[in-house]
Amino acid sequence: MRIALDAMGGDFAPEANVKGAMLAAEQLEEDYEILLIGKEDILKQLLKEYGYTGSAIKVVNATQVIDMGEHPTKALTQKPDSSIAVGFGMLKAGKAHAFCSTGNTGAMLVGAMFSVKAVEGILRPSIGGLVPKLNGGFGIILDVGANADCKPEVLEQFGEIGSIYAKYVLEIDNPKVGLMNLGEEEGKGTVNTQAAHQRLKVNPNINFIGNIEGRDMFNDKADVIVCDGYTGNIILKMAESIYDILHAKNMHDPFFDKFNYEAVGGSPILGINGNAVIGHGVSTPLAVCNMVLQAQKMVATNLSERFKKHTGAQ
Amino acid sequence: MRIALDAMGGDFAPEANVKGAMLAAEQLEEDYEILLIGKEDILKQLLKEYGYTGSAIKVVNATQVIDMGEHPTKALTQKPDSSIAVGFGMLKAGKAHAFCSTGNTGAMLVGAMFSVKAVEGILRPSIGGLVPKLNGGFGIILDVGANADCKPEVLEQFGEIGSIYAKYVLEIDNPKVGLMNLGEEEGKGTVNTQAAHQRLKVNPNINFIGNIEGRDMFNDKADVIVCDGYTGNIILKMAESIYDILHAKNMHDPFFDKFNYEAVGGSPILGINGNAVIGHGVSTPLAVCNMVLQAQKMVATNLSERFKKHTGAQ
Repeated sequence: MRIALDAMGGDFAPEANVKGAMLAAEQLEEDYEILLIGKEDILKQLLKEYGYTGSAIKVVNATQVIDMGEHPTKALTQKPDSSIAVGFGMLKAGKAHAFCSTGNTGAMLVGAMFSVKAVEGILRPSIGGLVPKLNGGFGIILDVGANADCKPEVLEQFGEIGSIYAKYVLEIDNPKVGLMNLGEEEGKGTVNTQAAHQRLKVNPNINFIGNIEGRDMFNDKADVIVCDGYTGNIILKMAESIYDILHAKNMHDPFFDKFNYEAVGGSPILGINGNAVIGHGVSTPLAVCNMVLQAQKMVATNLSERFKKHTGAQ
Repeated sequence: MRIALDAMGGDFAPEANVKGAMLAAEQLEEDYEILLIGKEDILKQLLKEYGYTGSAIKVVNATQVIDMGEHPTKALTQKPDSSIAVGFGMLKAGKAHAFCSTGNTGAMLVGAMFSVKAVEGILRPSIGGLVPKLNGGFGIILDVGANADCKPEVLEQFGEIGSIYAKYVLEIDNPKVGLMNLGEEEGKGTVNTQAAHQRLKVNPNINFIGNIEGRDMFNDKADVIVCDGYTGNIILKMAESIYDILHAKNMHDPFFDKFNYEAVGGSPILGINGNAVIGHGVSTPLAVCNMVLQAQKMVATNLSERFKKHTGAQ
């Protein structure tokens, strides 16, 4: 199995990405390889410099780089040999089984939609955010930024998509789905969340437990937290800032340390015909490593095929 | 000046409310009185039991109580002699200059709208949440629950209302207004936040600094944080849960201790013809005390009159 890794994306690329690939290579299962995509000469030089002598990392040449601030669609069109375009090309062609990048988030989303595309029947692919839970595990919140406005049927499907991720990747049996809301009563919320509640309640494919509130984010009421991408993005970034503040104050704790983006490595794009993970722009080698390991888990559990089976697209 | 306090609302009423009133009475300015509203015999008995001998607390009889789970409109109609109905009646009649309660939030909102009503020109009164800032002060986020869905013009006005609160009550000169969003660029966000951004940008009454993100909640980018009540409610409750988790882990810090609802006491209802504060249902005597002191500050700065002046209603 081959995991393609964009070596050029992110604030600390390519150094942190190469180091992260080397860290991941030590922990990958035997039948996995990392395809390090970027400027071949630079990457080979770095691998040499860092003393890499293994065989699990292969370099794939890509001569262009999409910068963090570039317009996603324009950049992908104008830079067909960028590491992100090459990565999704390999994912589409089946030459890679997953693609991950700490680069331009918009370009990652647009790249996914233009190359492997959404699974037939999936209304809106989403980005999932991993949520540390007080019970020691993780939950997933979706969407965290791909779709700012979400219609009720989209929110309903997030419950299904998230349940598949939670079941297979997080290994949670019969995952509990909660709708993030401002009150527990089913009549509470926006027009969209009220309508979504009614749909989720009668959906036979999921274990819907009702509305949850902001205070339930980290307890074990829900494993899958459904909300629009606007709200999810704010929640996730606020949680990250809490970690940063605690860290700056030298307050450490195993639970809060999991708020650190390095611990999870990245956010999966869910509902597309392929496994893709988006990492944080400021990713360190550890974050890159954990992003690759998360991609491995998605490949090992056949995640993107699960979405196809679920919608009947396969 | 008279601050009316609902003695019967909240999980620990009337004991915590009476104790809180006594704590507040010790700290109030000389020309302030507390009108303790509830069952006269019980309240007088408690004051006696707790050894109160001062003159700043007066008991006002109200024979009925609206419970936490009751339907707001129905309860207010059926219980005209409830502590909440009596409190707003006194506020409307000018017999009290502020009213605060840790009781049924919905009944507090409906009571405000039915009695003193929204200031003419205010599209939607809102509930403000006090946000602890890393720089040592507080900011305000609105709305935190009165309006789940907010149109762009409502969000715009939240910027104005919040600025008035920040300027007078929080004593922040030329408060910075930020629109909570999923990205800093002005094209980011929901349809409503994108449109609100365009309105806020050209509003001459406020100091709009653009979009802020979840990670900016506690830094000093913005003193006034504008968002819909759905999002604000989730953010606020999540912040409270962070305090609870830290507290349970025995992790203490002056900044995070301000996440405790007890420190701020309550959330002001903004944009109505009167000063009103809603406290947490689980309020302790300290929380009740701080809610009363916040009400005093609103009275002292003539807050509700400021809204009227702003809209030209006065």
